[in-house]
Amino acid sequence: MKNIARLAILGSTGSIGRQTLDVVRNQSDKFQVVALAAGSNVALLESQIKEFKPKYIHYANQKSTAINRTKFISLEEMACLPEADIIVLATPGMVGLKAAFQAVQAGKDIAIANKEPLVTTGGLLMKQAEKKGASILPVDSEHSAIWQCLAGEISEPAKIILTASGGPFRTFSSEQLENVTARDALKHPSWNMGKKVTVDSATLMNKGLEIIEAHWLFDMPIENIEVIIHPQSIIHSMVEFADGSVKAQLASPDMRLPIQYALSYPERLPNPSLPHIAWDTLKELTFERPDTVRFPCLRLAMSAGKTGGTMATVLCAADEVAVDLFIKGKIGFTDIPAIVETCLEKHKSVPAKSLEVILEIDQWARKLAQTTARKIND
Amino acid sequence: MKNIARLAILGSTGSIGRQTLDVVRNQSDKFQVVALAAGSNVALLESQIKEFKPKYIHYANQKSTAINRTKFISLEEMACLPEADIIVLATPGMVGLKAAFQAVQAGKDIAIANKEPLVTTGGLLMKQAEKKGASILPVDSEHSAIWQCLAGEISEPAKIILTASGGPFRTFSSEQLENVTARDALKHPSWNMGKKVTVDSATLMNKGLEIIEAHWLFDMPIENIEVIIHPQSIIHSMVEFADGSVKAQLASPDMRLPIQYALSYPERLPNPSLPHIAWDTLKELTFERPDTVRFPCLRLAMSAGKTGGTMATVLCAADEVAVDLFIKGKIGFTDIPAIVETCLEKHKSVPAKSLEVILEIDQWARKLAQTTARKIND
Repeated sequence: MKNIARLAILGSTGSIGRQTLDVVRNQSDKFQVVALAAGSNVALLESQIKEFKPKYIHYANQKSTAINRTKFISLEEMACLPEADIIVLATPGMVGLKAAFQAVQAGKDIAIANKEPLVTTGGLLMKQAEKKGASILPVDSEHSAIWQCLAGEISEPAKIILTASGGPFRTFSSEQLENVTARDALKHPSWNMGKKVTVDSATLMNKGLEIIEAHWLFDMPIENIEVIIHPQSIIHSMVEFADGSVKAQLASPDMRLPIQYALSYPERLPNPSLPHIAWDTLKELTFERPDTVRFPCLRLAMSAGKTGGTMATVLCAADEVAVDLFIKGKIGFTDIPAIVETCLEKHKSVPAKSLEVILEIDQWARKLAQTTARKIND
Repeated sequence: MKNIARLAILGSTGSIGRQTLDVVRNQSDKFQVVALAAGSNVALLESQIKEFKPKYIHYANQKSTAINRTKFISLEEMACLPEADIIVLATPGMVGLKAAFQAVQAGKDIAIANKEPLVTTGGLLMKQAEKKGASILPVDSEHSAIWQCLAGEISEPAKIILTASGGPFRTFSSEQLENVTARDALKHPSWNMGKKVTVDSATLMNKGLEIIEAHWLFDMPIENIEVIIHPQSIIHSMVEFADGSVKAQLASPDMRLPIQYALSYPERLPNPSLPHIAWDTLKELTFERPDTVRFPCLRLAMSAGKTGGTMATVLCAADEVAVDLFIKGKIGFTDIPAIVETCLEKHKSVPAKSLEVILEIDQWARKLAQTTARKIND
């Protein structure tokens, strides 16, 4: 890596953004923050600006007056910033999707933490990145694990094995699942993440989306991507090769490790604030197959991934609406897959050939998910 | 790899030799046998010659008349054979040690299965190999695992974690260990290997020797090599990096995988005869710390490794004598570490600077081990 990698962090006040800044804090001789963008949490953004002194800033909340406006640039300018070596994309939703394409179009390396770009338009994004010489550096712990396991391998992998904690309801019966609340779902057993992804972990939709991401990131057919429930969350994913050999990446669950790896790759940096596996207390790693009857989101995502085209956009959009309604207490936990399934069934997939197509389908699916939810509540 | 890798297999009738030939049998478009050397099992050698049609042969048993003598070359000639791309070293003991040095001296790549060269003269061997541009390709499943985990990593690893099955007596009390027989020790729970290495697995000396091998192969201080008992023998070893990330290599226990990897590296070849991990039946991987009170060989080996010099030669030689006596029913299981410890205590280590020094100390230690064993039996 270069002596100092200059970072533009889009989504700096979210979970990934804050953990990225923690990595920078511990590696100040390796990383420098040149730009920060946040949404509505102006107070936190202000304190981040004070600490990291970025040259450029962006904020969505127009009410902010405390922030120096002379440093303000647009999100698009930040995504393409010539002074940044890596664009950290931790901005959720369609805003992040657009930024990803703008960055890649400008030939920038992106450390990608938001799921939408790869899930909805992974094929397009990877093609653009290759054309423009931009690297897509995965930040998700699972994709980072796969990436680490593939390092130095010249033969194509045979299979990807994504591990999943199973979420807080792993052992719940179908009946129990009907009565879980957002409060229950937001207590994740091993990871500290944002609300949306925590609920997605509980439904296993998160793992489903990761299958589609892995499919694009590593050019692996959906059929050759397996999911294994591994409640300890120590093995973050595995790769199987043609000779039967499997490589796994293990670590104590802490998102700062995959974030740092994405930023320091191919080097690894010592970081005393990162946890090491305690082999004296780790007695076992267990595995079980996922149950797609109790957790249909996994089946829906695999099916959408196999269908391809705009089906994954519908999956993403419908899930986002449904999870939001669940967090607000407006629908039940098992309504999430029901809403997603209804939307998928009503969609006829077309090729995901442009951002415009994706945005249009996204809007359509969101409306349909809202309508479907209202019908459930009637 | 080249289209066809030409192999000289020294020790073709032993466990590793036979499994190497099985790999060749399954990959006949990738590997070709140009030379075979065996010890006393002439019948098997004859059948191997018939099947693989090597250009050169060597055998230690002079009584053999059925073998075509015009193809006969010395073991040294075979170790340096210009027509071979890789020399597979599966000849045990000091014969294998000499061959390893001859091969490396001639700049040949060696797939190394015998422990003595790395344990007793690892420093010398690695230095010679570097000077002559010869690659040392590990065949042991543990070292192969470490090698696979290090592929593509540009930062120095922080720690090596060697896994051990724990052997058939893992859960035995000290009292029970006193009464185990060679017959008990030769039933290894997960690996099918030769007698010497099977007994060494039961005493954990095998793991101790592997620590010293790993030390030399991967230039890792003994202090940074840990052993973890992992009875399922699925994780074959792990590497921990400075960022807290751990990479592990997993596979169903089958020596043909590391053998094939050593021969096909950096490529991986599909091989339908190799087993794949059955995730549907694999429910757990467990770990525990080794007990060096019940299994002192591990402690003795680590101590000999830390002392360095000729101490590891004494460890190796004394162990070989003790294990042989145990297999013959002349000493008890717990006498093995006792004999080794006595020999180590009586030795003042000197630098392992030449093969001559090693051979001399080896002879001295063997005699001392015999004497010590006789005293035990008195």
